Amino acid sequence: MLIPIILSGGAGTRLWPVSREAYPKPFMRIGGGKSLLTQTHERALEVSGNTAPLIVTNRDYYFLSHDELENQQIKPQYMLEPSGRNTAPAIALAALWAIQQKPDACMLVMPADHLIKDTPSFYTAVRHAENLAKDGFLVLFGVKPTGPETGFGYIEMGNKVSEHAQVVQRFVEKPDAVTAARYLAEGNYVWNSGMFCFKASTILDAFATYNPALLEAAREVWNSTKLDGDKMELPASFTALENISIDYAVMEKAKNIAVIPGDFDWSDIGAWKAVAEAIPADASGNTQNDCQTIVIDSRNTHIQTTDRLVAVIGLDNLLVIDTPDALLVADKSRSQEVKEVVNRLKASGHESHKTHRTVARPWGTYTVLQDAPGFKIKRIAVKPGASLSLQMHHHRSEHWVVVSGKAEVINGEQTVVLEANQSTYIPAGNKHRLTNVGNTELALIEVQCGSYLGEDDIVRFEDIYGRVQ
Amino acid sequence: MLIPIILSGGAGTRLWPVSREAYPKPFMRIGGGKSLLTQTHERALEVSGNTAPLIVTNRDYYFLSHDELENQQIKPQYMLEPSGRNTAPAIALAALWAIQQKPDACMLVMPADHLIKDTPSFYTAVRHAENLAKDGFLVLFGVKPTGPETGFGYIEMGNKVSEHAQVVQRFVEKPDAVTAARYLAEGNYVWNSGMFCFKASTILDAFATYNPALLEAAREVWNSTKLDGDKMELPASFTALENISIDYAVMEKAKNIAVIPGDFDWSDIGAWKAVAEAIPADASGNTQNDCQTIVIDSRNTHIQTTDRLVAVIGLDNLLVIDTPDALLVADKSRSQEVKEVVNRLKASGHESHKTHRTVARPWGTYTVLQDAPGFKIKRIAVKPGASLSLQMHHHRSEHWVVVSGKAEVINGEQTVVLEANQSTYIPAGNKHRLTNVGNTELALIEVQCGSYLGEDDIVRFEDIYGRVQ
Repeated sequence: MLIPIILSGGAGTRLWPVSREAYPKPFMRIGGGKSLLTQTHERALEVSGNTAPLIVTNRDYYFLSHDELENQQIKPQYMLEPSGRNTAPAIALAALWAIQQKPDACMLVMPADHLIKDTPSFYTAVRHAENLAKDGFLVLFGVKPTGPETGFGYIEMGNKVSEHAQVVQRFVEKPDAVTAARYLAEGNYVWNSGMFCFKASTILDAFATYNPALLEAAREVWNSTKLDGDKMELPASFTALENISIDYAVMEKAKNIAVIPGDFDWSDIGAWKAVAEAIPADASGNTQNDCQTIVIDSRNTHIQTTDRLVAVIGLDNLLVIDTPDALLVADKSRSQEVKEVVNRLKASGHESHKTHRTVARPWGTYTVLQDAPGFKIKRIAVKPGASLSLQMHHHRSEHWVVVSGKAEVINGEQTVVLEANQSTYIPAGNKHRLTNVGNTELALIEVQCGSYLGEDDIVRFEDIYGRVQ
Repeated sequence: MLIPIILSGGAGTRLWPVSREAYPKPFMRIGGGKSLLTQTHERALEVSGNTAPLIVTNRDYYFLSHDELENQQIKPQYMLEPSGRNTAPAIALAALWAIQQKPDACMLVMPADHLIKDTPSFYTAVRHAENLAKDGFLVLFGVKPTGPETGFGYIEMGNKVSEHAQVVQRFVEKPDAVTAARYLAEGNYVWNSGMFCFKASTILDAFATYNPALLEAAREVWNSTKLDGDKMELPASFTALENISIDYAVMEKAKNIAVIPGDFDWSDIGAWKAVAEAIPADASGNTQNDCQTIVIDSRNTHIQTTDRLVAVIGLDNLLVIDTPDALLVADKSRSQEVKEVVNRLKASGHESHKTHRTVARPWGTYTVLQDAPGFKIKRIAVKPGASLSLQMHHHRSEHWVVVSGKAEVINGEQTVVLEANQSTYIPAGNKHRLTNVGNTELALIEVQCGSYLGEDDIVRFEDIYGRVQ
């Protein structure tokens, strides 16, 4: 039994302005219409014979992940971290969960934010890995280098362990360009993909040997974790676990490790350059998402936008990444430095490192269309059956106009049902609640009026998503 | 008596996406907070001792020009063309008007879309020109070249006519780079600025001599033109006049011409490169309007945006021109080619060559905040005292929420007054009218609902701006 463990953590700050704290890299649609998380989930089902994966992610991403995967036939379970502690604590907890499912469970650990284009080759590599894992190996997936990349850790491989796997000679940190070129030439180096396969019992034994304190602390966390529907919320004590990667905590010390050198067209989509490379280019090397552009005499340039028209003239090797509230124009060869932009945004307290203009909520989304002194306009989209909390605002009144779907509105003592082209008014101080009682998405336009329009002017009385303090 | 004639025609297609058909170059704010039109108007008043200028422009720009200049102490008169016919017809009509004001009127012809930074030098040049004009000369303003520009026509100057003016040896078309460099080296060439000074009688005599047919046709147009308040609407027959520049029609044939070589830091703002050059650059040569940017290791790059954050990394000599619905990123040295973008937009019927997301109307502006199937959201801003037409829509209902100011709303048989945080509903088929009855701007949010939401679903019954068919 192969249990897929999906680590959905990567913030993807180098993919700003599309990836943001509240909508990070696993939710980005790259290489087709599906998000990286969905693609990973589908690979997990395929390779495990439809075993429900465990997704380990931050609790803030639970509803977003849930919505993202709601059309999947087999749904995952969730293990929710109160804060990210790198891969070792996550894998330790996942192993404690897996061994409880089945004592000889075999885990396939996959980050949620990787792109794999040649899935048949990947599935073959997993089969080989699973066989070794059953024999007590900790198996790493290496990726045969296609160029002298400096952005990855490398694994130097030694003698064969089996027909398809080799001994791990040593782990090497991200090399400089000269060293990377040498690794490529020597041929016995692979990129460290961050994917693993091992029995739950094997990795727990390895923790016990090489990092017993971490395992001990993880057990205590696990013992106070309860399953609630499809999710397990890890308690606050998880945050006290050592912030350390599985490579440092275990892999670099263990003896029973092996690497399978894979060749499955893999990318960790580390930066915009990799996104561009994942999209078929035109004759001039230009790439774009499905957007409206006018391109005059430009080469090797990646353009990405939503509903704005983008015209470019005479560009070479650039990135143009356009979102409703922030625009990035950068030399493609310097796409790593996008991280610096995000750092500066954080330092200045600018919202655009954190949220998009469209914000996901458990019940749907809202989009700020205009935020001006004295008023704010939002488009609110509520999923069928979903309901906002019963709430009240001290400082703002709200005018609601339904533009599609069917709303039930509790407004003070009254309850009304509104359909498209009907409106209502919620005075400041009135308790109110919005529910989608139709079978299609409910869309409404909210015009807020008041002297203070911050999101924190909200008193919640009841909430089906547990958001009442 | 020096009468300023302001030719406000230039479409400025090379300044897309800020300059658009419905909001062209004269209205752009360059070199400070004022529009080029306002700057030209203020120069006109200064140099003429507060003589009200005549603005010759397209009838579509009357209200926009009027609003733009509403805070000027001395207001212009308007001569409104049904369609643009280049400079010769406009100048002929302006001369017929001017000579009627005063038989020996002297005209100073100034395009509305030029930037002049050294106004004292310009005023001195105008004084010299006026003296020559009184002696019966057609006076051109030349600009001493500061570089081998290929974007301008040149004038080769001969002997001195007076202390400050020289004979025009010949006009030369836009030269290639080698020729331009030679002109610069030889020193007796100036750029042809497109500004002129002459007596109305002198230019009319010149038309009579060199293009009598045009003059005859212009006289017929003039005879059926009536003054209506501050404006003269030229009749449709104007459109039959020859589409020709004053240079071709008169200047290149006339004998009594002279050129004053000026040195007043002039730019015709022909393309974005010139806009960037008109703004003080930082130590790296970067320029921007007053906008939010993060600039990492970039040089000679011009950034212009409204409310979006723009981050750039590793750019060199680029233009980033961002507007709510269209973005231009271009090599600065190829800013002439923006024209080609506009041609392609026109060919494809894309709205963004014509209108902005904010559209000016006689009564104020509207901004489309969202245009989606089944509904459209607008922010409507009405000037104090202004009133929309009494109108009706067949296919859409409208929900209005006032967010600031005071509105009088006629809605079917009822009339109500609404203030901030009040709303009303206009069902499809209801006659309605919106008037700002307060002393401050009236702002309201309109949510339109209906199966058809085109601007042409409007029946106008009464309109104070004469827009009823």
